[in-house]
Parts: sequence; C-alpha cells; structure tokens
Amino acid sequence: MRVCIIGCGAIGSLFGAHLARLEDTEVWAYDVNREHVDAINANGLRLTGLADFSTRVRARSDAKEIPPCDFGIIAAKTLHTRPAIEATAHIFRDGAVCSVQNGVGNEEILAEYVPRVILGTTFPAGHVVAAGVVNMDTGGKTWIGPFEPRPASMDEVRSLAQALTRGGMETLAMEDARGAMWTKVIFNCASNGLAALTRLPHGVMCDQPGARRLMREVVNEGKAVAARLGVTLDSDPDKLVDFGREKAYYHKPSMLQDVLARRPTEIDALNAGVARIGREIGVPCPLNEAVADLVKALEFSWTLKD
Amino acid sequence: MRVCIIGCGAIGSLFGAHLARLEDTEVWAYDVNREHVDAINANGLRLTGLADFSTRVRARSDAKEIPPCDFGIIAAKTLHTRPAIEATAHIFRDGAVCSVQNGVGNEEILAEYVPRVILGTTFPAGHVVAAGVVNMDTGGKTWIGPFEPRPASMDEVRSLAQALTRGGMETLAMEDARGAMWTKVIFNCASNGLAALTRLPHGVMCDQPGARRLMREVVNEGKAVAARLGVTLDSDPDKLVDFGREKAYYHKPSMLQDVLARRPTEIDALNAGVARIGREIGVPCPLNEAVADLVKALEFSWTLKD
Repeated sequence: MRVCIIGCGAIGSLFGAHLARLEDTEVWAYDVNREHVDAINANGLRLTGLADFSTRVRARSDAKEIPPCDFGIIAAKTLHTRPAIEATAHIFRDGAVCSVQNGVGNEEILAEYVPRVILGTTFPAGHVVAAGVVNMDTGGKTWIGPFEPRPASMDEVRSLAQALTRGGMETLAMEDARGAMWTKVIFNCASNGLAALTRLPHGVMCDQPGARRLMREVVNEGKAVAARLGVTLDSDPDKLVDFGREKAYYHKPSMLQDVLARRPTEIDALNAGVARIGREIGVPCPLNEAVADLVKALEFSWTLKD
Repeated sequence: MRVCIIGCGAIGSLFGAHLARLEDTEVWAYDVNREHVDAINANGLRLTGLADFSTRVRARSDAKEIPPCDFGIIAAKTLHTRPAIEATAHIFRDGAVCSVQNGVGNEEILAEYVPRVILGTTFPAGHVVAAGVVNMDTGGKTWIGPFEPRPASMDEVRSLAQALTRGGMETLAMEDARGAMWTKVIFNCASNGLAALTRLPHGVMCDQPGARRLMREVVNEGKAVAARLGVTLDSDPDKLVDFGREKAYYHKPSMLQDVLARRPTEIDALNAGVARIGREIGVPCPLNEAVADLVKALEFSWTLKD
C-alpha cells in the first residue's frame, strides 16, 4: 500500500509516522514547509511524547515528485484544504483521500478533485517541536467511513483502518462515520469558537455561568443540525464539554491559540460551517452565526495598525 | 440653585464646568480621585477642545463636606452607580438626581436612595487630559425627563434643563425622555458590545458584512424591547450606526477602550441590561445575552496569568 500524507504538520506526522512503521506500506508526505521536508528526508520523521520512534517517510514540497498512491490522508489546516488538494489531486487519480481535519466542509472540497473520499475524525493531537520532530500530546481513536456522494468502498475504508491500527493508531472503519465527526465538530464549536472570543482556557470558561450557558446553546444548535441531517451522534457534545473541563481545565483550544498568535482560524470549518449547513437545510443557528461573524471580524482587526 | 456633580470625570466635568459659569448656580463635585479634586480646588475646573474656559467648582472626595443640594447630576461609570449614590444620598434628601450615564438600570438604583429621579441621555463626550483639565471632544444635546416611579416634577426638570442650556449645554426637558435614552442604549449595544469583542473601530466594523449584520440584529432585539415597553424611539438606532460610520470611522467605542486597557466594562448597563429587561417583560434577546456573556467572560480572562 502506498499512502501520501497531505499536510505533514502535527496531525499529519502522527499518521505518517505510525503508517511508516509497517513493512508493507510506503509513506510519502506533501508539505510546503521545506525545512520540515528536508529534515524528514535527512533524519526520518521522529515522534516524541506518547510515542517515541523515528520512521522513514519520503517528504516532498513539490507534489509532482510523488508517485500515484492508493490513499491520501489530508491533515492540512482547513483553510488550506483547497490549495493542498489542488496541488496533489493527480496523485489520487485512482485513489481515495481521507480527511482527518477539523470541522465540516473539507470532504466536499476533496470530492471536487478526487474520485473517492473518506470522512474521518481523529482525537490524537500533537505539536511540532522542531523540523522533522513532532510531540504526540494526546492519544485516542480515529473513525473513518465512506463520504457520500463520492464514497470510497468499505473495502478501502477497512484496508486503511487496518493499516493505521496495525501501525499503532487505533482506527475504526464505519459504514457511517458522520456521528463521530459531528460530535467532535459540535464540541469544537462550543469550545474553540467561544474560547477565541473570551480568551479563556476550556475548563476556566466552563466555570463562568454565562459562558457555560452559551456553550450549551451553541451545542444545541449543532445538535439540531445533525438531527435534521439524520446523523446519530456518538455522544452528547455537551457532556464532552464537561469531560474536557475535568481533563483539560487549563487547555487553550487551538482557535484561542490562533487568536493569541493572530493566525487565521478554522472558524469557516467550525461555527461558520455549521451555520452554513444549517441555513441550507432550514435549521437556523443564530448563535453559531454570531460567533462566526465575531471571530471573522476579530481576524480582520489584525490587519489594522494598533 | 445648588448642584452636585457625582463622579466628576470627563462627562461630569463637562456638566459641572458649564453650570459653574452661571452666577446664580453653585456647583459642587464629588469624586474619589483626590488628585483631580485638589487640582479643581486649587486652579478651577478647566475645559479645553470644543470648550475653552475655567470655572470655580467646589470639589470634595468626602461627601460629608458637601451641603444639601437641589440637584445632583451623576456621571459615574455605571459600575460605580451604587457606591457613588450611597456615599452622596444625604445631599439630596430634598433634591432630585439626574443620571447622564450610559445604559439602563442607573435610575432604578438612584430611586432606592433619593426621593426624586431624572432620567437623562447626553451626547457630548470628552476625556480627562490632566488633573483638573478635561478636553471636550464632542458636542451635542442632552435630554432629561422625570423617571417613573420616583419622578422629579416637570418644574424641576425644566429648571435643570434651563440652567444647563444657559450654561452652554443645550438640554431638552421632556415629559418622557425614554425615547432618547433607548435610542442611545440600543445604538451602544451594537457599537460598544460588538467592538469589545471584534476589537474593531466603529466604522471599520460596519464595513465587515457579518459584523454589520450582527449589529443590525442586536439593534432589532433592542427595538423589540423598547416597543414592548411602550417607548417611541427618537430615531432608528440602525441609522445611527450608519451615521457613526460616516462621522467616526476610526473611533474606538468606550467599551473597546476598556477592553484594550483591561478595565471593567459597562456591559451590565448595555447588552446585559437590555437582555435582563427583555427577560422581565417577555422579549427574548439571545444575541444581546450572548454578547454580554462573552464580554463578561473576557473580563474574567484578565484575572488569569497570561
């Protein structure tokens, strides 16, 4: 099996490195960061933290140098989904591409470029500590399944899930993986979207009664959208909010980290994406829409002089 | 006529200095800032900018040193309304106190402490440039009227309005001044509340389509509350938003200034106050409530270590 990681940052590296441990799997990686690419080619891709090993990954910044692959795993930031798949689509003329990105709307973009798409949701997390070195911060499962209306076959989904699990990333092949995806998306709308505006770590925010109430209402809008789509959630995202309070009280959700560093956020794939889908299917999401508009305006404020 | 300014910051100084130009009016001022008080007593209260004169004002940090007055004009920040009137109530045992503060809820607090209350709304603005010196940045009218259920008489309202107008601050005595107040409050909910979260100057925010839409919806909630209260607005607050875009494109609303300086905001008198009144009379204000909860959580973030 030949696999290409598209966007070999923290998450992409976790997938690439684990797959590259398998003798029957050849792993390529596409990333625009040349320093990271050069380090991976020179020294291998190294994981630290919860994992601790190095593997051989063939990394490239020029996608033309990558041969046709059976699978792609895209882990780029959601705002780079389109340029990343535009650059790499030729690799998957007869392949299936799986998104393990945050939020909604990524698979729809992939489906414009490649014949078969896999929808995925992943819990493991990490961060790049140096070129070619990624620390695995958090473990957890990954769920993947065919994406309608351009699905990969269940055989393909199972084949990818088995390879990932054999490599050490437990992955479940599902006929319908939307439940896992929507559960995480709705949780993230409450945790990430509101943390970006309140600048509070997840658990601290949960202890502010007004913010906690608002998180619940943002979750309720997302649940209504999922229900109208016929998606059965894996678990109650509002319970995940409480669970996160217990487990990660001082964790700054990634969108808060983006705001503090004045980087573009993934709001379009989270609150704005849920609100857009809600509009399309007649489920109003005024609070997710408000959060999205506030975060987008906040992003614009970084273009002004102080 | 003897008048006491309660909270002699930027706005209070505009009122106090203009009234003190009248030969038949004795002006006292209560303020907790001793340096400002000492400078006013030593050199007079000086206005610069749109006004340019000095007047004699008797300033005190100890309210016990202030004699009984016919009128009070409270211009303290709304979060200091209660301690300010608690300290000064004895001055107005037979007087009427007029609020020219931002937002809703101030008059209700005054009515707990003094026999007669006047509801006011003012447009002039300024800023303290040094102890005893205030720059008048903006001119404009002031509207005052009896506050139910503890109203001053219309004779009192007219008497205060005439004194202010003679002193150079055009003031209109109204049987019902709530229309002017609610027009400004609703405008401020959109401009201040959202600027605090997006960190955009008023006009720049107006040019962000999502933020402009949200401002309109925040205004619409406020209009619904005013309508249910039987208040006829002076003008459409949404038109004031556009007017502000023309006249004050790069103006940072005061709540944004508070956020940037990490000072407590007036959110309780603006979006939170409107949402509270809406709840009491059965007009839901989910967006004002969301803005209020976000701003309060943001205020809490300043108590954390970075």
